This record gives sequence, C-alpha cells and structure tokens, in this order.
Amino acid sequence: MAFPRAFSYRLTATAGRARAGVFFTPHGPIETPAFMPVGTQATVKGLTREELLAVGARMVLANTYHLYLRPGVDPIARLGGLHRFMNWDGPILTDSGGFQVYSLADLREVSDDGVRFRSHLDGSEFWFDPETAVDAQEKLGADVAMTLDECPPLPAAPAVLARAVDRTVNWAERSLRAHRRPDQALFAIVQGGLDPALRRRCAESLAGLGFPGYAVGGLSVGESRADRLAALEATLPYLPGDRPRYLMGVGAPEDLVEAVERGVDLFDCVLPTRVARNGLLLVPEGKLTIKNARYAADSLAPEPGCDCYTCRNFSRAYLRHLYLAREILSARLNTIHNLRYIYRLMSRIREAIAADRWGRFREEFYARRSGSDPGHEEG
Amino acid sequence: MAFPRAFSYRLTATAGRARAGVFFTPHGPIETPAFMPVGTQATVKGLTREELLAVGARMVLANTYHLYLRPGVDPIARLGGLHRFMNWDGPILTDSGGFQVYSLADLREVSDDGVRFRSHLDGSEFWFDPETAVDAQEKLGADVAMTLDECPPLPAAPAVLARAVDRTVNWAERSLRAHRRPDQALFAIVQGGLDPALRRRCAESLAGLGFPGYAVGGLSVGESRADRLAALEATLPYLPGDRPRYLMGVGAPEDLVEAVERGVDLFDCVLPTRVARNGLLLVPEGKLTIKNARYAADSLAPEPGCDCYTCRNFSRAYLRHLYLAREILSARLNTIHNLRYIYRLMSRIREAIAADRWGRFREEFYARRSGSDPGHEEG
Repeated sequence: MAFPRAFSYRLTATAGRARAGVFFTPHGPIETPAFMPVGTQATVKGLTREELLAVGARMVLANTYHLYLRPGVDPIARLGGLHRFMNWDGPILTDSGGFQVYSLADLREVSDDGVRFRSHLDGSEFWFDPETAVDAQEKLGADVAMTLDECPPLPAAPAVLARAVDRTVNWAERSLRAHRRPDQALFAIVQGGLDPALRRRCAESLAGLGFPGYAVGGLSVGESRADRLAALEATLPYLPGDRPRYLMGVGAPEDLVEAVERGVDLFDCVLPTRVARNGLLLVPEGKLTIKNARYAADSLAPEPGCDCYTCRNFSRAYLRHLYLAREILSARLNTIHNLRYIYRLMSRIREAIAADRWGRFREEFYARRSGSDPGHEEG
Repeated sequence: MAFPRAFSYRLTATAGRARAGVFFTPHGPIETPAFMPVGTQATVKGLTREELLAVGARMVLANTYHLYLRPGVDPIARLGGLHRFMNWDGPILTDSGGFQVYSLADLREVSDDGVRFRSHLDGSEFWFDPETAVDAQEKLGADVAMTLDECPPLPAAPAVLARAVDRTVNWAERSLRAHRRPDQALFAIVQGGLDPALRRRCAESLAGLGFPGYAVGGLSVGESRADRLAALEATLPYLPGDRPRYLMGVGAPEDLVEAVERGVDLFDCVLPTRVARNGLLLVPEGKLTIKNARYAADSLAPEPGCDCYTCRNFSRAYLRHLYLAREILSARLNTIHNLRYIYRLMSRIREAIAADRWGRFREEFYARRSGSDPGHEEG
C-alpha cells in the first residue's frame, strides 16, 4: 500500500537515529517529532481550539472506544464528522479502541474474530473487531486511523504475547482490506511486549503489508523506562524509514527525548494534561507541586520566562489558591502551561536535530533536571 | 459623605422609574443598568479575563467571606491586591461577607458587636464585625466595598427584622467611620425583609448617612417574585437618585427587567453561571436543558443568532455530549453563553431606556418567553 494521496512524510534532518521531518495530512502538515494531546471524549479537557493552537498543538488524538460508546459514531458522522463536531480543523488521529477495551471495559472475551466487552459506562455489551474499528474510525473521519490490536498486560507469558502478535498481524491485514476512505491513513500497531524477537517479527510482518505509518504499542503499561527503551530499540529498525513512527501513550519529558533519540516521530500521552489537573506543573527542573505551602505567597510565574498564557498572567500563589479551592480554572491554567511546556520542548528538539546539536541539547536537558520543585532562587 | 474623588454616577436617560447612566470607578466606567458575574473565590468559575471581556462583563463581584478564609486577605494584599491576584483590571465589588456568614458558616452567634462564626471549610472560629469587614475589603482593594449587614432568613418575626435593621444601620455607621481607602467606595445595604415600613426606615436612615451608593439586600432568599418586587418598591423611593442602586443576588432575566423597571442600576447573581454548570442555557424563550435527548443530533447553535463563542462554534449535540461526559469544557462553554445572553439583555435594556422604547422592549421580552425548551423550528 502506498501513501494515500493526501498524505506523505518527508525527512528533513537526522542526528544519529533521531530524525526531523514533516508529515502531510488532509488537514495540514505536522512538523515531527510531534506530540498529540489526548482529547478522549472529543475535547482536550478544558481547552478550546484557540488555546490548543496557542500552546502549539497541531494534531490531536481522540479515543474511538469512548466516542463509540458515547455519543456514538453515527451521530458524529451525521453531524459532519469529528473535526466539525469538536471544532478542530487540524489533523486528528483516532486510536482503534483496542487499548481501552483492555484497560477500561468491565469484561472482555478475546477470540481470533474480535472482542466482546461490556461498556464501562452502563454495562451494556458490545462487539468490536478489526472491521468494526475501521468502520467506526471512518465514520469519525480522523486523518489517521489505527488498526485494532491485542494489547496484553505486562508481564505476560510468552505464549500469550506470541498469540497477541499473531492476532495483531492478522487483524492488521483484515483492517487493511476493510479500509475505504482515501482521505484517511491507516496505521498499524506493533505489539510483542518486552520480547525483542516478537517485536521484530511483528514489525517485519506489518512492514510487509505496506502501511502508510506504524505505531509502537503495548508500552507505557507499567514497565521500567529501560525496558520501554529496549522494546523500542527492538522494534524501530524493522519499520520502514520513509513512514512516520508513532510511540503510543508515552509523554514524560525524558521519554520523549529518549524515544526521539531512537527515531520516533509522533507521540500522544495523557501525562501533561492529567498531571495538570492534579496540580503538577512541568518545569525544566522536573515538576512543581502547586499545592505546596511554599507557594502560598509566591508572586513568580509557574515557570519564569515561559511564554504561555498562564505564566504571563498568574502567580504560583494564585494557581495554588485555585487548586486548593478546586476551581475549574485551575485545571485549565495548569493544562495550558503543561502543554506549552511540552510544545516548547518538542520545538527545541526539532531545532536541535535540524541544527546538528542534538547531543548538546540532550546534555543541557538533563543538566537542568533535578526532579524536585524549583526553589525561590529566581525571586 | 460625598462621592470619593475617583467615583461618580451620571444619569443619562430615564423611562418612568427605569434609568440608564454611567458609574465611574478607579478601574473604569460602567454603563448601567449593569450586571456583575460572581467570582466567589477570585475567579468567575472557568473563565479568563479575556472571556469575561468578550461576553461583555466590565465589573465583577468577589466574595469577602470566601477570600477571608482562603487564601486570606493578607496574602492577597501582599501580592498586590485582588485585581492583580486574579488578573482583572476592570472594577471589582466585594460583598461584606455578611450574607455568607448567614448562609454558609456552620455556626454563628450574632450580637450588637458583630458575629462569631465557624468556617464552613474547617470548622475554625472567626470573629467578624463591621470594622473587620471594612479592613478585609480595604486589603482586597476592590473598587466598591459593602458594609456588614444582618440578613435574617425569611420569613422572620417582626422583632427579628426590626433588630436586624437597627444593627444594619448601626453597623453601617461604624463601617463609615472605619473606612479609609480613598480609591474605594463604600456602599450601604438596606435590610427590612418584606416589611415596607422597615424597608423605608432602613433606607432613610442609611440615606441620611450619605453613602456613595446603596444596595437592597435580604432578597432572593426564597420569597416570591411579587414579594421581592414589592420590597424593592418599598425601598427605592427612599434612596437618593444621584447614587447607584444595587440589587444584591438577583439575576433571573425577568427579575433583571422588573428591577430595572423599578429603578435598579446594578446587579450580581450566581444564576447564569451556576445554571450553566448544571446544563441550563439561557435563551430568549426561557431555558434550554442541554441534556435532553432531543438535542442528541441537533446541529443548531444553542441560541441561533447569538454572537457568543459557544454559539459561533458548537452545536447543541456537542454541548449535550460534553455535559453528559462531565467534561470541564461543558461548564465553560455554557457559562460563556449564559453570561453573553445576560450581557446582550443588559445592553438591549440600556438601549431601550436611552431610545425611549422601554415599554415596547418589555412587551417584546415577554412575548418571546415560553419557559420551555426551544423547538426545532429554526432547523
């Protein structure tokens, strides 16, 4: 399968295995490496389109599983598709629903045909198979759709992992046959747990089917960072270099840097938005826990020098107050900062690769990190 | 007491008892009749300064009781005052804290000296008296401060109401003596329940003290609209016509129209923002209950023709989805619409008074109202 007409990937610079490029989609180009914020229920929690653009987001992810159950993919299709429904005219990627079937559904029975599961919302039963997942995503109308995969929890027995790889490859073939929309690219997902041989087998099998893009799935499920990076290293060399490579569900700053170092182009993760709602702000030093009493009278911005709306307008003391008072604005302002932090990081990553100073960038990135709350040195 | 230097009120048009004017404050002029959204904890729930300006808000209210308990008025003062703390450079009015001491505190003992109460947050004990209330509001630094009053729940025995009026007048005198900030106007509050004689006595006594503005308090506590309007009619004639008149805690569209008809200039109310969070959208017909199944596939804006951000960008179907999914954006988008609805109403009210078509405006306002959800006629 060649790239669908509206899509292409152009490599613009490399630094070792790290790469910078542009991924072209029907809703515009994306400079890679790129991060997608998660809009589970057709909304990146608390933010509008204008705020997403202001922090630097150009492509967002939405969850097929959630939208399939509520409000349903047919109503969204009748209302003109997901872009129009959620008022986002940039690229959208929808996952296949597979991950949530495994992580959220109350009960599931997996067979070679597909998955029967009970909704986490109301307990009603649903059937999901590769064709259902393709059909749902074609109705949603995202720019990029994902094949249904089997994502076993880790650790898993070798036989379980091997069967999941077989199913994932077989389901990818079925997905490819079922897929129709020419304005949508279908990406396949590599499984294989932490087993290098299985990772390679899965990657090579999927690469042989000729997808326009590939994802590394089955990670960020509780394994260590070292294991995660080893699995990544066992996968990426077997994926074609002329297609985007997407690491699913990974978004801690160190993980972004290390995955880019190994050749990843695309990321999504709930981390920056979820920790924001829990009062954690991402800063160059690591994190800032806004509820801490030390910020009660702190007039500094969360990250002095940051150009985000939150840092330009509010003090740590005010953000602490909003968080302790459980105000809606707390989640919103923290989310804006955290996403802006991630997008400034991605921008610096792309620049470092393009300017051939990737190694120095990594050194500086780690030199600033302490893991603890930043002090008052600046104030 | 004359107007503090930075303040003045200019009457620009009348229509019967209804009046239009401009209230000048250190943070800018306010065209009246005006509505203030409630920013209880130094934030109008979910919205930023830019969104408040976009919906038409020019003056906001914050609650002294809440801010006194958390984060405290001293930290806010040290951080440069309430305007800077919450990033609002328009006028602010703070209430005295009296109403919340009566409605929220776990226990309270009222004497002629003041009120001892237990925090609704953590049960700790506080003392509040007219001087404390003035001091707290001077630290917050709002443009308009309110005197501490006694607000008895209705119905109340005549002796209770009479004692509350005596205390309220005495406390207003003490407040006036305690008040220092020249860049802050102190308004007095008329009590008296539903008793016309007490209302008149309280209004005349306070008017004799020469405040720069007067509020009608003790209403919107469960009484009928007819009783509310009767109490208003028993109060307003005894307040000086050259000072702003503020009706506290009232904000249903009909109440706004009827209070303006009787000569009120200023309003605050949680209604538009609170019902927004509960999924009720204000529309010319009355209200739209967004969770209703009839909106599941409705591609119309909440109020077709409305110029607010929500109506320009989103369908009823999407807003229904956000509400059912309990998404933060639901509260925010609904709040934007409801406040914009109120501000378009206030703007039309001012125009109607200025253009001498107030009577016709009221007729048209009531002709469109049905109280029920709008139908699909437009779609």
